[in-house]
Amino acid sequence: MDQLFDRLFPICRSITGPGVRETLAILQEYIPLQVEAVSTGTVVYDWQIPKEWRIRDAWIKDSEGNKIVDFKENNLHVLNYSVPVDQTMTLDELKSNLYSLPHLPDAIPYVTSYYKERWGFCLSQRQLEGLQPGNYQVYIDSEHVHGELNYGHLVLPGENTEEVLISSYICHPSMANNELSGPIVAAFLYNRIKSWPKRRFTYRFVLAPETIGAVAYLHQNGKDLLENLHAGLVLTCLGGEATLSFKGTRRGNTDLDVLIQHLFHNQIPGRTRPFTPIHGSDERQYGSPGFNLPVGQITRVLHDGYIGYHNSMDTKEAMGIDSLQRSVNELETILHSLELQGHYINLNPYGEVKLDKHELYPDFNFIGLWGHSNNQVVDHRTQLNRILTMLNYADGQHSLLQIADKCGCSVLELEPVLQILLEKQLIKGPFTEKRGLFE
Amino acid sequence: MDQLFDRLFPICRSITGPGVRETLAILQEYIPLQVEAVSTGTVVYDWQIPKEWRIRDAWIKDSEGNKIVDFKENNLHVLNYSVPVDQTMTLDELKSNLYSLPHLPDAIPYVTSYYKERWGFCLSQRQLEGLQPGNYQVYIDSEHVHGELNYGHLVLPGENTEEVLISSYICHPSMANNELSGPIVAAFLYNRIKSWPKRRFTYRFVLAPETIGAVAYLHQNGKDLLENLHAGLVLTCLGGEATLSFKGTRRGNTDLDVLIQHLFHNQIPGRTRPFTPIHGSDERQYGSPGFNLPVGQITRVLHDGYIGYHNSMDTKEAMGIDSLQRSVNELETILHSLELQGHYINLNPYGEVKLDKHELYPDFNFIGLWGHSNNQVVDHRTQLNRILTMLNYADGQHSLLQIADKCGCSVLELEPVLQILLEKQLIKGPFTEKRGLFE
Amino acid sequence: MDQLFDRLFPICRSITGPGVRETLAILQEYIPLQVEAVSTGTVVYDWQIPKEWRIRDAWIKDSEGNKIVDFKENNLHVLNYSVPVDQTMTLDELKSNLYSLPHLPDAIPYVTSYYKERWGFCLSQRQLEGLQPGNYQVYIDSEHVHGELNYGHLVLPGENTEEVLISSYICHPSMANNELSGPIVAAFLYNRIKSWPKRRFTYRFVLAPETIGAVAYLHQNGKDLLENLHAGLVLTCLGGEATLSFKGTRRGNTDLDVLIQHLFHNQIPGRTRPFTPIHGSDERQYGSPGFNLPVGQITRVLHDGYIGYHNSMDTKEAMGIDSLQRSVNELETILHSLELQGHYINLNPYGEVKLDKHELYPDFNFIGLWGHSNNQVVDHRTQLNRILTMLNYADGQHSLLQIADKCGCSVLELEPVLQILLEKQLIKGPFTEKRGLFE
Repeated sequence: MDQLFDRLFPICRSITGPGVRETLAILQEYIPLQVEAVSTGTVVYDWQIPKEWRIRDAWIKDSEGNKIVDFKENNLHVLNYSVPVDQTMTLDELKSNLYSLPHLPDAIPYVTSYYKERWGFCLSQRQLEGLQPGNYQVYIDSEHVHGELNYGHLVLPGENTEEVLISSYICHPSMANNELSGPIVAAFLYNRIKSWPKRRFTYRFVLAPETIGAVAYLHQNGKDLLENLHAGLVLTCLGGEATLSFKGTRRGNTDLDVLIQHLFHNQIPGRTRPFTPIHGSDERQYGSPGFNLPVGQITRVLHDGYIGYHNSMDTKEAMGIDSLQRSVNELETILHSLELQGHYINLNPYGEVKLDKHELYPDFNFIGLWGHSNNQVVDHRTQLNRILTMLNYADGQHSLLQIADKCGCSVLELEPVLQILLEKQLIKGPFTEKRGLFE
Repeated sequence: MDQLFDRLFPICRSITGPGVRETLAILQEYIPLQVEAVSTGTVVYDWQIPKEWRIRDAWIKDSEGNKIVDFKENNLHVLNYSVPVDQTMTLDELKSNLYSLPHLPDAIPYVTSYYKERWGFCLSQRQLEGLQPGNYQVYIDSEHVHGELNYGHLVLPGENTEEVLISSYICHPSMANNELSGPIVAAFLYNRIKSWPKRRFTYRFVLAPETIGAVAYLHQNGKDLLENLHAGLVLTCLGGEATLSFKGTRRGNTDLDVLIQHLFHNQIPGRTRPFTPIHGSDERQYGSPGFNLPVGQITRVLHDGYIGYHNSMDTKEAMGIDSLQRSVNELETILHSLELQGHYINLNPYGEVKLDKHELYPDFNFIGLWGHSNNQVVDHRTQLNRILTMLNYADGQHSLLQIADKCGCSVLELEPVLQILLEKQLIKGPFTEKRGLFE
Repeated sequence: MDQLFDRLFPICRSITGPGVRETLAILQEYIPLQVEAVSTGTVVYDWQIPKEWRIRDAWIKDSEGNKIVDFKENNLHVLNYSVPVDQTMTLDELKSNLYSLPHLPDAIPYVTSYYKERWGFCLSQRQLEGLQPGNYQVYIDSEHVHGELNYGHLVLPGENTEEVLISSYICHPSMANNELSGPIVAAFLYNRIKSWPKRRFTYRFVLAPETIGAVAYLHQNGKDLLENLHAGLVLTCLGGEATLSFKGTRRGNTDLDVLIQHLFHNQIPGRTRPFTPIHGSDERQYGSPGFNLPVGQITRVLHDGYIGYHNSMDTKEAMGIDSLQRSVNELETILHSLELQGHYINLNPYGEVKLDKHELYPDFNFIGLWGHSNNQVVDHRTQLNRILTMLNYADGQHSLLQIADKCGCSVLELEPVLQILLEKQLIKGPFTEKRGLFE
């Protein structure tokens, strides 16, 4: 992870341009994404793919010819999507194109102007305040050309066509948590899922520029998602010390919503927030009213929860590679639980199953033994009680999650019982939808 | 209002008779009611229109010939619907036909006997206690004739045929809050609604004698109401210092119920009560099980909440003309909000609307500006957040009220955003019923 | 009851055998059960009827020939379903077939091994500890023969075919609360219900060996129950000082569930528990997923709530015959309320009923009388308010229980009003299912 991070961090990404393609090419060494292109000018719903932005150099020189601001030192220095400029001007004239953050005097802000022609430089408040009156030369060697917007995606097939979507974005220049944490976690999570002995669901990975990339993705693939999507997660800001924070899907009550609430209560530390179209990431596009897809968002820090949001303080050290590792682990647990969740069917639904026949119940009834033996079948009341509860509610109507709640445990704690009952062919499942006992 | 009040107050009304017709004739100067008649003897469901009561005079003279109780001084003195009488009797004989209120020694009670033949006089407890033994002459010049029951109604058309009902009663003699407050507020509210630039709903006004008048009205017009009624309010006791109090419809969860709860939480001081068939006014008839119409009741004081209930202390001063004015204002706000309430459709439902294109979003993204500019589009996050929320949930399934709740504001606070989005043709609506995005 | 108890107590019952038949024969003197037989070897769902157990004698003699443990003194002494044995062995050898309860040194435990061949003796911990080293002769004169499993049942017809099930078990040897309380209460409850002037429901009584008996019963009669069963109660442990405790049906929201919650709130002291397939009695079979019948369980003490559970301390004195009497009374109240519960229809649903016409409302309106007269019609506001509420909600959609909740009283307190309105033909009902006003 560390190595991947260090290769991706210096690249100057934007919503279009060579930086996006370079980023996708490096990621392909970890996850075999298929890279797609959407041409400049293409109309995607209420949006239109803009000209592609290419930047080679940008700097400000003072009256003595010293480069005092240099894109090659930190690509945040240039206003993202700047038009070219090559002029000499006074400090006062220059200042109307300079951006800084008075409350964070050492931070270089991240500023964009994708859809209106502007040029500008970003620098720290401290540097701004130190600028002396005089003439400055400003130079930006950029161009806006008829080109393309790029994204990468991949479908990893499972036993059935129901899909789980993992989506993140690639459009911010040198920032860590609010750019690279998502794609890196996605790439490593892909390798975990690929190694599972079996997959119930088909997994789809999408890495696209935020907002317009997601809109373009939906324009080209939305119909597939509407047909097949069972659950989805937008990954963003997965570094930092905080616990996971899940923003629910727009529907609010999908399997994913209730499962994550359950796991955050029983298994993984975490918090939940309701869906909102204000702030956030591409769950806003997946959750637009025409799609209303079952996609939530998962993060560790909210945009107003860390000082480095949209500025140069969003570094690898502030993010923490170990937090990304933890995120991969916890997301794998969530997805594994989603594979278990569903509706099961008791194959002997009339009367109780005669459990002693199946070596799951004592052949002998003496309360003097309860809690006093080392015989798991006789005395292991926890297992027995979970089996009884599982069999009774394996009626195609109650989900595993509801059964776990009745047992007072998590779906993962029910997994051993589930495996026993599946192996002994006492139940079948899981089925995503409710069904009758004899369907 | 004051002038109208003073003309209506002295009239001796009952459930039938010339007083009702005179009252309706005066009200017609303010609201062009159509007056209807239902003949004596007509069967209306479990009821039958009684003979019409006409009274010209009534008094008690003491042994010296002094009129000690006189209908012409206060029409409450005669038991409403009294049969004629002209007799001389002892004080003891008289007393069995006298009614007073021991706990309110100066008040003349209001007593009725519509469906059983009786005669009687009402007087203050103080006067009763002062009566000396001796002979008294009692005289009531009344008659019960084959005549009619009258009511007034009016339909003010709107853009669609869905109706809003405003109903009150005209049957009590000289009382203020529990008689005239309803018709006067209805008349002035009519003039407000008539002056609106447009009306989504059709408005129906009904003024009828309480209970039997409403039953007769439903007998003749109930089918129309069942077909068209969207919401209705019975107006009663709208004077007094208290806040509005809304008694919910029998269904309990209609648009009107949830809207008024919302407004009482956000916009107008007020309290709510659930529907009950015990006590109250004509919402009991509209809410009988065969009709179950979406009609609530609105008042400021409950029958057990003021000392003047059904006696001569129910005066203009106790009621307050200014309270009626306040009631007209608040009811107009409620009805205006009801016009806004409904389901809206986002006309660009796939992905977010590209708001900068529509001059509703900054063309420039720099967090240094948030909260620090005077540019409404860039910085007016409240407006922007409401627009995003409105567009996301304008899916034909969420009502404006639910969207306002998501925004943490009232439907009236959402109105400016609504106007912008309607004018820019980004949404359409309102629709009363839920609908699909492409219906 | 006392006499019946004393005849049934000494019989050595098991899940099969002569003891069950003898028990049913005695019960037939009180309740005309039809006795059925299911042959050894019959497959009933996942179960199979075992061989019938017959036992004649069983004892342990010490080395001096004294019977130190004797089945004829207490039939709990023998492990239920023991295979025959006739051996002499050392104390150490013997001990592996002896069962006692260290925490209850004077109690003889009740131990069974129905489905695995074993022999054994049960005795008190105190006696066990007093056994001297030496040789012991153990003797059990039992056999397992191809025979039958027996149960008794009875259908008491009512006005309609919807059924109420009363079920209990007959399979434990000499125990009181956890065996005889159920059948005895069932028998006496039968006689109460039989004497009612009319029965809306058909009542079905079932007495079968626990678990396998219920499974066999369902195998033979489950289809009938699926077609007709409206509500059912498994009776168990109905002695003891505690209040009734109701374990809800698996569905959790049937008429029976909500009615009992209501009565426990208003009328009868009691507690409720949710359904669970762990612990309990034959509600587990009725509530298996293939049947999911509306059957709850009713008890006074839970298995972990009394010291005599499954041992010789479960005696008549600990149970209390008077508690059984109280159980009969309370169960009759529950069933009587169930007969009332349902949906009623107002036969004059348009507008209010003109109650004075039906002598249910004053013909005279004077608030001076409210609360001050001895005229029940004028002043009896409680009755009037209940009538108004009953008539308004007798719409085929609200159940009597919901109406009682609106009145703030129990369904039994509403019964007088119900009788008046039924007699005056102002309403009809009850109907078990919701219905429209004019169906």
